[in-house]
Amino acid sequence: MKKAYIISTGTELLLGSTIDSNSVFLGKKLEDIGIRVVGKIIVGDNRDQIARAFKLGFESADLVIASGGLGPTKDDLTKEIACQVMGVKLEIVEEEVRRLQDFFARRRRTMPESNIKQAMFPPESVVLRNPLGTAPGMYLSKDGKVAVLLPGPPREMENMYINEVEPLLKKEFQLETRKAVSRIIKVLGPGESQAEEMLEDVIDDPRGCSLALLAVDGEVHIKVTAEGRDINDSQRILERVTEKIKDKMSDNVIGYDRENLSSAVAKLLMNKGKIVAVAESCTGGLLAKLITDLPGSSRYFWGSITSYSNEAKKILLDVKEETLARYGAVSKETAAQMAQALIHRYGVDIGLATTGIAGPDGGTAEKPVGLVYIALADNNCCNVKELHFTGNRETVRLLTAKTALDLLRRHLISGGKD
Amino acid sequence: MKKAYIISTGTELLLGSTIDSNSVFLGKKLEDIGIRVVGKIIVGDNRDQIARAFKLGFESADLVIASGGLGPTKDDLTKEIACQVMGVKLEIVEEEVRRLQDFFARRRRTMPESNIKQAMFPPESVVLRNPLGTAPGMYLSKDGKVAVLLPGPPREMENMYINEVEPLLKKEFQLETRKAVSRIIKVLGPGESQAEEMLEDVIDDPRGCSLALLAVDGEVHIKVTAEGRDINDSQRILERVTEKIKDKMSDNVIGYDRENLSSAVAKLLMNKGKIVAVAESCTGGLLAKLITDLPGSSRYFWGSITSYSNEAKKILLDVKEETLARYGAVSKETAAQMAQALIHRYGVDIGLATTGIAGPDGGTAEKPVGLVYIALADNNCCNVKELHFTGNRETVRLLTAKTALDLLRRHLISGGKD
Repeated sequence: MKKAYIISTGTELLLGSTIDSNSVFLGKKLEDIGIRVVGKIIVGDNRDQIARAFKLGFESADLVIASGGLGPTKDDLTKEIACQVMGVKLEIVEEEVRRLQDFFARRRRTMPESNIKQAMFPPESVVLRNPLGTAPGMYLSKDGKVAVLLPGPPREMENMYINEVEPLLKKEFQLETRKAVSRIIKVLGPGESQAEEMLEDVIDDPRGCSLALLAVDGEVHIKVTAEGRDINDSQRILERVTEKIKDKMSDNVIGYDRENLSSAVAKLLMNKGKIVAVAESCTGGLLAKLITDLPGSSRYFWGSITSYSNEAKKILLDVKEETLARYGAVSKETAAQMAQALIHRYGVDIGLATTGIAGPDGGTAEKPVGLVYIALADNNCCNVKELHFTGNRETVRLLTAKTALDLLRRHLISGGKD
Repeated sequence: MKKAYIISTGTELLLGSTIDSNSVFLGKKLEDIGIRVVGKIIVGDNRDQIARAFKLGFESADLVIASGGLGPTKDDLTKEIACQVMGVKLEIVEEEVRRLQDFFARRRRTMPESNIKQAMFPPESVVLRNPLGTAPGMYLSKDGKVAVLLPGPPREMENMYINEVEPLLKKEFQLETRKAVSRIIKVLGPGESQAEEMLEDVIDDPRGCSLALLAVDGEVHIKVTAEGRDINDSQRILERVTEKIKDKMSDNVIGYDRENLSSAVAKLLMNKGKIVAVAESCTGGLLAKLITDLPGSSRYFWGSITSYSNEAKKILLDVKEETLARYGAVSKETAAQMAQALIHRYGVDIGLATTGIAGPDGGTAEKPVGLVYIALADNNCCNVKELHFTGNRETVRLLTAKTALDLLRRHLISGGKD
């Protein structure tokens, strides 16, 4: 697989105010035609830094694609430096001079001297048209290395890449349409290192796939990329490895690519024609929010009660005074009564309840910050799970809400046999 | 001026799907303490590429600050390679081993073997605490070059930079505290350009301040920076201009810097000793979530009812059958009944209710997507506001929740005389 390095120049990109969207666009596009981006570098309009970036790029990759620094001003250095690094000379190209003069004439302006450098190119290069601006791009292939220089303004850059550069790259590297396919498998339950242990066999023998694990908000995302002889072969490999990973991960798999916990739960609830309701204490509305992030959730979501005060727990969820007195609001017993009230008093199929200490205050020796109880009740059973989360308030609340959704998901998969 | 190079590692950052927000945060922060970022580089989890990146960084700058690749898995390579490049050896640090074992013990899990590498550091280095995750960071100063290694997850990275790294950098490079002081004034009500008009006089005559307006989730943030002869002088200038802006913006000012709508409402409710409850339809729990984001919210928040189904609206909030039949769930009348039920049935001081069409589906000619009703009731009155928001489901829900909080804020300021 051919490798590419992306360089973005422009001091404004280093100040934290501007995001380098060009390299994101180019990253996607190169991936699409089967060129692997091995690195991206952002430098200011500084001679040494730009030169170092190009040297690193050519050391690391077959293709270096840069955007920015093709303008007429003194701090536009990209072309000059790229040519130095590649050992080629810039010469005035008459046709480009005329093109520039036309451009200014059409705007009733005379061309400033400084613009002449936009008409200078090495004879070995291909000049890339820029219908949207004055700065032409440059394509140069030499000694098995390719340099592509594009203008900085996103519209000009994207237009030039699509119309001029992509066809040249496909020809240069004989890229027939993309062979690699990939998929993200989302897992909840094991931690990142535990997931890696569970997948040991697959990782040791990936059968033409590359695997990458990433921890995201309590989930582990497994990115599987397959590259076979052709797209169909890749697809076959991907499916085969996906199956192996599914075997290893079994119920821990939430879904694929764009799917998430909410959509997984939604699908199961609709298949089984079940209605769920939620009673929240420590998650304070977050659990209901996650469920209702999905349009159409009213088909399976009855509603939720955020019983933040003990008052509300008693009035709305029939939590008994003595339960609160003896066991406290954060207890197995209170969680169970909250979930059961949803079934018995409001008549939904499944009740889900959370109570816990999100912190930073309110923790005690026997009930520390991070202690959480999640209850799930239906007409047959009521299970309460005790959990201990670490992290700040935001983390504890998020992990509690996601774990509650995951308990619901597992309950629906097992058909309530848990 | 000292120079820094920022390295972000993680294959996912090269695929165009994930944006490298870490380097944007670090760019801003380093700039704030007077360190110039001369380059940023993004590489995958690849040994050669990471090594090249560190070499380039040390060639180009005094400080190399990297995020990502500190996890326990095989493709977490940053620390190992950084130490090779700097010529230092990794050794097991017993204290860190214990810390890791505790972390897993608290989660009732045994520590996988692979995690041990998270407890290995060169003796010359400072270990950086990570209260939010398992991966500690590393700070190493050697031969006039400084390497800082931070975890990849933004929350962990930002927390570690602010609490551990910034003080070390200030000491290392003897960065005298800056003369400039700044403040963000948060405003809700006028749009960005309207706010600019309201502030015309201040902008034309900023009295030694610089003003920058930024639109954020329906709010306008006014960043005022003052740089006088010394820190005290700057502070005086800042206060003077803040007063002028407050005069112009009056009730539209939510708060300053870290303050937000939730904290502004919390302060007012506690001052007035009022208890609020919430009834949500279209916001589906988000409004309660925003209120309970704040620790201690149980002092003024009774709870919330997310009446997503009409069923729930009737049973929990006494919304009348004929109201739903004649006016529909998304109507002035339904909103009013939802808010009033909180007062009359549950006895809180203030009831806040939302109902609307968040989309993308469910809109009609006379009730389009984005139509929202927000009701606020107390013992004296019940006001319902009709609003029309544009944007996707997420935006409509967020703007509805924030507008509801803002109505509550204004109601509390006016002492209910609205």
